[in-house]
Amino acid sequence: MEPSRAGPCGRVLRGRATPPGPTPPPASRKVLGYTSDVLDLIANLVVPNQTKIVLLSLDGLGGLPDLRTGRSELETARLPHLNGLAARAACGLIRHVAPGITPGSGPGHLGLFGYDPLAYRVGRGVLEALGIEFDLHPGDVAARGNFCTIDDRGLITDRRAGRISTETCMRLTDRLRAVRLPGVEVFVEPVREHRFVLVLRGTGLKAHLSETDPQAVGTAPLPVRALDADSESTAGLVNRFVDDARRRLADAAPANMVLLRGFDQLSELPRFPEVFRLRAAAIAAYPMYRGLARLVGMEVLKTGGTFTDEVATLRQHWEAADFFFVHYKDTDKAGEDGDFPAKVAALERLDAFLPEIEALGPDVLAVTGDHASPAVLAGHGWQPVPVMLWSRYCGADPVTAFTERACVGGSLGVIAAQHLMPLVMANALRLTKFGA
Amino acid sequence: MEPSRAGPCGRVLRGRATPPGPTPPPASRKVLGYTSDVLDLIANLVVPNQTKIVLLSLDGLGGLPDLRTGRSELETARLPHLNGLAARAACGLIRHVAPGITPGSGPGHLGLFGYDPLAYRVGRGVLEALGIEFDLHPGDVAARGNFCTIDDRGLITDRRAGRISTETCMRLTDRLRAVRLPGVEVFVEPVREHRFVLVLRGTGLKAHLSETDPQAVGTAPLPVRALDADSESTAGLVNRFVDDARRRLADAAPANMVLLRGFDQLSELPRFPEVFRLRAAAIAAYPMYRGLARLVGMEVLKTGGTFTDEVATLRQHWEAADFFFVHYKDTDKAGEDGDFPAKVAALERLDAFLPEIEALGPDVLAVTGDHASPAVLAGHGWQPVPVMLWSRYCGADPVTAFTERACVGGSLGVIAAQHLMPLVMANALRLTKFGA
Repeated sequence: MEPSRAGPCGRVLRGRATPPGPTPPPASRKVLGYTSDVLDLIANLVVPNQTKIVLLSLDGLGGLPDLRTGRSELETARLPHLNGLAARAACGLIRHVAPGITPGSGPGHLGLFGYDPLAYRVGRGVLEALGIEFDLHPGDVAARGNFCTIDDRGLITDRRAGRISTETCMRLTDRLRAVRLPGVEVFVEPVREHRFVLVLRGTGLKAHLSETDPQAVGTAPLPVRALDADSESTAGLVNRFVDDARRRLADAAPANMVLLRGFDQLSELPRFPEVFRLRAAAIAAYPMYRGLARLVGMEVLKTGGTFTDEVATLRQHWEAADFFFVHYKDTDKAGEDGDFPAKVAALERLDAFLPEIEALGPDVLAVTGDHASPAVLAGHGWQPVPVMLWSRYCGADPVTAFTERACVGGSLGVIAAQHLMPLVMANALRLTKFGA
Repeated sequence: MEPSRAGPCGRVLRGRATPPGPTPPPASRKVLGYTSDVLDLIANLVVPNQTKIVLLSLDGLGGLPDLRTGRSELETARLPHLNGLAARAACGLIRHVAPGITPGSGPGHLGLFGYDPLAYRVGRGVLEALGIEFDLHPGDVAARGNFCTIDDRGLITDRRAGRISTETCMRLTDRLRAVRLPGVEVFVEPVREHRFVLVLRGTGLKAHLSETDPQAVGTAPLPVRALDADSESTAGLVNRFVDDARRRLADAAPANMVLLRGFDQLSELPRFPEVFRLRAAAIAAYPMYRGLARLVGMEVLKTGGTFTDEVATLRQHWEAADFFFVHYKDTDKAGEDGDFPAKVAALERLDAFLPEIEALGPDVLAVTGDHASPAVLAGHGWQPVPVMLWSRYCGADPVTAFTERACVGGSLGVIAAQHLMPLVMANALRLTKFGA
C-alpha cells in the first residue's frame, strides 16, 4: 500500500499520481536554441493532482542599496510576513534572461510562466493590445504608445506627459482615430494614464521595426526604421501616422506628441494550462499582465483596480482553479519613478496582505518578481530578483530574510526564470520522475 | 623543469603531465542538443596520471526535514566521519537533471559519470537487463517488470507484491517463460525480490511504448500504448504477454499480476574508460547499478550482497584500477519506504565504513548520491543532493557538516551532475588546461 499524505488543507497529496493519459501535443518550439527547453521536458512529466498553487509576482521586486543607508528597498522595509515566509521557504535568486540583461515585463513574466524568454518572444505592442481585450487578428501590427510632452524645438521633456489621466488619454485617442493611412485600418485604443495601443490592420504588414521612443528626455522622437526589407512599407505607414498625430496633438500639451515601441505581430505560444495541466487563473489589475496571462492561455479573472480587490478575487475563485498568478504592480511603479520611500511603502503594503493569502491554504506559494526596478536606477534593472518557494516539501535553507543579499545563500541558488515553474510543479507533487 | 609533487601515498603526481598524444576519437554525440556536452570538452583535456579516485554514491542520499523535528535525515544522523570529511572537502549540491525535475536512478547515475542525462537517455529495461548480465542484443526490447498484487476487481493493492522473496520471484518467472508470442522470443528473468526483466527478441520490434504501471494503488494496470506508429505491433505483443501473465499468475497472490515499465532498446554511449582514460571499476551489490556501469564500459567487479563485501572488494582490487565507482543502496531503500529512522540508520552504518575507504589512500574521494529520496516523500525527490569532493587540491570552504542545508554554502555551489567528473579529474591532476 502506498502511503497517502494529507496536505495542508486536508486534501490528499499523491506523490505517485496517475501518469499522463494521452501524450500531450508537442508543447514548444525552439526559436534560437540558446538553452534547454524546459517545456519539452516538463510536458512529458506532468501528472494530475489536487494541489493549489499561488505564484505572487511583485512587479519590479528587486532593488539596490540606497546610497546613504547601504540598504536596499527590501532591506529597509518592515516585512514581518515576507521575512517569516522566507525562514520557512526555499530561497534563491531568479535571473530572467541572462547575466547583465535587463528584462522587460513581457520576457520577465514569460520566464516566470516557464517559457524561456530567449526562445519565446512577444513584443510589448501585442501584450498591450491583449491587455485591453483588443481583438487582435493574425497579421495585425500592434505597438505600445505613450503620450509624451515635447517642447517648441520638438525635444521630449516628459516621456509620460505627466501621467495624464485615463480620461484625457481617452479623449486624445479619439483624435488619433481620425488618422487615415492608405490601404490599412487604424485602431487607436486607450490603455491607462498616458498609454495607448496602436494597431494597423491590412495585408502584407510586417513588424520588424525600430522604436520611436529614444528612452530619454532632451532629444527628439526617432523616426521608425524598417529592420528588414519586408517591413519597409509598414515603416512608411507608421511614420505617416506619427506625423499626422503630431499635428492633431499640437494644442494638447502636456500630451502633445506620441512615442511608439514594441511593434509586434501575434505569435502562438504553447498553452500554459495544457503544458502544465493546470486550471490556471490570472489576477492582475493592470492590463498588460492580464494580456500576457491570456496570451499563454490562462483564464483572466475580473478584478478591481486595487490589490485588496485582487486578494478578494483570489478568495472568491479559490475552488475554481489550481494555479493562481497574482500580480502586484505598486513595487514597479515606485521603482520606475525612482521613489525609494514609495517602493519601501509598496513592499510594506504588500506584506500586510500575505497572511490573507496564506490563510487560503495554498500547497505551494511562490513569491518573486518579473525583474528588478531599483529606485536608484528609476527603471528596470538587470539584477537577479529574490524568489522564495514554500511547500511542505521545499526543504530547509539558512535564509531568514526576503532580501537580495540574504537570498544569495538560499538553496534554490541563482536560477533561470523558466526553472521556477518546474520547481513549483515538483513542490505541488504534480511531476513524475525523469527516467527510471 | 616542472615541479613534481609527492601524493598522499608517495606516488608522484604530475600536475603538468604529458599532453595527449594523438587526439582521442570523438567521444560523445549530442542526441538532443539540450546542453553543451561536457564530454566533448573533457575528452580533449585528459592527461595520464597515477592518481586513484573513489566515487562513492549513496543512493537516494538527499532528504527533507522531518516535520516534527525540522531536521533532515542527514541532520539527524550521527555522522562523525562524513562530517569530518566535509570539513576538509569542497562541498556543494548536485542538481542531476534540472531544477524541479526528479531523476530516476539511471539519469541520476549517468550524470555522476559525466553524461548529460538530458542528452544521453537509457531506459530502465535496458539497465535492468544489463544488471543481471543478460546478453541483450541490438534490436531487443527490454522492460523492467514488477510483480504486484491486484484485488478481485483488478485494482492494484501493492505495486511491489509485498516485496516477495527472490526465490518466489524465480519460481514465478519460470511460469511466465511459458508465455508464447507469435514471431518473437520471450525472455523473463528474475532480478531480485519483486523485480524481473522482460525481453522480446525478434525483427522489427520497437520500444516507444507507454508503461503499464500507473504508479498508484487503487487503480488497474494500464494497457501498453504505442507512442509512435512503428511501435504498434510491439505494443500488441506486450499486451498479449500481460494478458497471458495475468492468467498464469491468478493463483499466485500476493504476486498475482505484473507491471511493466521502462521499455527500451540498447543504445551506445561513449565509453567512460576512453573518455576519461581511466581504468574504471564498479562495485555495486545491486544489479541495476552494475548494469549502468557496464553500459558506460566500466569493469564490473564481482562482489557480495553487503556493503562490507563491497569495501572488501574495493580493498582487493585497489591496485588494479584508477577509478572506483562504489554504490551504497540502503539509503534509497529506506527513503523510498518512507522510513525516516531507517534512513538515518543507513547513513550511520555507511559512516562507519568511511575510515576504511580513506585508509586506502585515494587521491580523490567524492561522496554524493544519484538523487534525493526524502523519507517524507517516500520516493525520489527533485531536491539537489549534497556532494563533497576531497583531494589535496580541493580548496577550503566554510562547510563542516554533510547536510543539505550546510552544503548550500559550499565552494562547489549548485552544479549539474555532469560537471562532477571534470572536477574529480581536475583534483586527480588528470586534466590539462583549456587553451594555451
